[in-house]
Amino acid sequence: MPDRAIQLVVQYDGTDFSGWQVQPETRTVQGVLEATLDRLAGGPVRVTGAGRTDAGVHASGQAAGATLAEHWTPERIRRALNQQLPHDVWIVAAHEMAPSFHARFSATRRRYRYVVGLRDDSWSPFRRRFLHPWPGPVAPDKAHLDWCAGQLLGTHVFRGFAVRGTAPDDDNHECEVHDCRWTKSDGLLTLEIEANRFLHHMVRFLVGTMLEIGAGRRSRADFTALLAAPDNDDVSPPAPASGLTLERVTYPAHLYLANR
Amino acid sequence: MPDRAIQLVVQYDGTDFSGWQVQPETRTVQGVLEATLDRLAGGPVRVTGAGRTDAGVHASGQAAGATLAEHWTPERIRRALNQQLPHDVWIVAAHEMAPSFHARFSATRRRYRYVVGLRDDSWSPFRRRFLHPWPGPVAPDKAHLDWCAGQLLGTHVFRGFAVRGTAPDDDNHECEVHDCRWTKSDGLLTLEIEANRFLHHMVRFLVGTMLEIGAGRRSRADFTALLAAPDNDDVSPPAPASGLTLERVTYPAHLYLANR
Repeated sequence: MPDRAIQLVVQYDGTDFSGWQVQPETRTVQGVLEATLDRLAGGPVRVTGAGRTDAGVHASGQAAGATLAEHWTPERIRRALNQQLPHDVWIVAAHEMAPSFHARFSATRRRYRYVVGLRDDSWSPFRRRFLHPWPGPVAPDKAHLDWCAGQLLGTHVFRGFAVRGTAPDDDNHECEVHDCRWTKSDGLLTLEIEANRFLHHMVRFLVGTMLEIGAGRRSRADFTALLAAPDNDDVSPPAPASGLTLERVTYPAHLYLANR
Repeated sequence: MPDRAIQLVVQYDGTDFSGWQVQPETRTVQGVLEATLDRLAGGPVRVTGAGRTDAGVHASGQAAGATLAEHWTPERIRRALNQQLPHDVWIVAAHEMAPSFHARFSATRRRYRYVVGLRDDSWSPFRRRFLHPWPGPVAPDKAHLDWCAGQLLGTHVFRGFAVRGTAPDDDNHECEVHDCRWTKSDGLLTLEIEANRFLHHMVRFLVGTMLEIGAGRRSRADFTALLAAPDNDDVSPPAPASGLTLERVTYPAHLYLANR
């Protein structure tokens, strides 16, 4: 009986997780998913994520791949998982994929959202888990943020905005940014950024530095310099994990069996 | 130096609280507020709530009263509290009130919202803490719910929908319902209900019974009978606390010093 390659679209509130990746003795999203799948499948199931989100980072559309026996149709595994998963993890959708599908290597784009809560009125307990509460009385200057976002579009080497020695494959620090924009509404400043790939801590380093520039504590020239820097010696501290959400992972349409 | 009567408008995520009211050895909203105010004021401060929400019930607009020394202006105490309160409690606003203000006895109306998550698509980890996930494949019949809501308008004796022996004052079980309506959108069924007062567990008993009628497991006649019942022997189990939020408490305008 052939197996099925399943893509799970996963939502999680990252607050109470030590990130995505399995680690001994800590609660991780991959660990919770694998333990639940093991129980359902009656044997060990490996789950591969499109990206390894850090501790405290959320997802509204993380993608995960698993190979399952044929009787697990996408809808059946989705329902079974949702009945057993804890309340802070949720399978939004499940798709059957071509056998060549790999959750990480097949992904062509990832999209993240970063939310800054501006006025303290936006820090309500209903939103607080999913934003970075801006501590200052004056909001970051949106014109500076917009300028930085414009600089990021296109292909750059992001050594200045990555944790050292953690490029996901070889020593390649090049990323192509397809979309990058800040919006401001309802007391929130929100960054949407989409790229072919991201380096470790890259979005949080970018946001941390952009907010310092927006607050007038660093110059636009610093940003330009960091985009050409050979290391991250001059980057600002990463913005807090709570503001970051992995929104969407894109795969080529031909990998979805339903599209064939 | 005269004291100030302050109304605090309080939001909380009730998930990790054993309700509003102070109890030894457990985490309650009133307990957290009093402990924080004690620290700020340098002495014991009593906080009175407009209503005692149960364990797990949320608030987007609970009202609380406290008497504070004159140097605590409303804005000053609001900021100081928000700097020290844990992340699941938040002071949205603070108002200076007339000396005769009493958070519970001066309130003329309370408004609650109850949210049922219908399709399992609405149970995302971002909303899950604040709704009751409807377990069945078929949504409750909205026409039945609307009919029940219509029956509730006006003045009734709610012995059929209250915990026995817990009427807040004397043995009075009469409440006047000013507004009561169900709406359905985006996979959610939402009840909004406003009354001069509510009895213990009343909203959750009402919702539990309405949902049973909506699911076709009880009749409309049962609802009529419960509205005239001398006790709660025939009521359905209360709906889960997670779906309930205290939205707003109304006081007469003349009690707000800013309005004078």
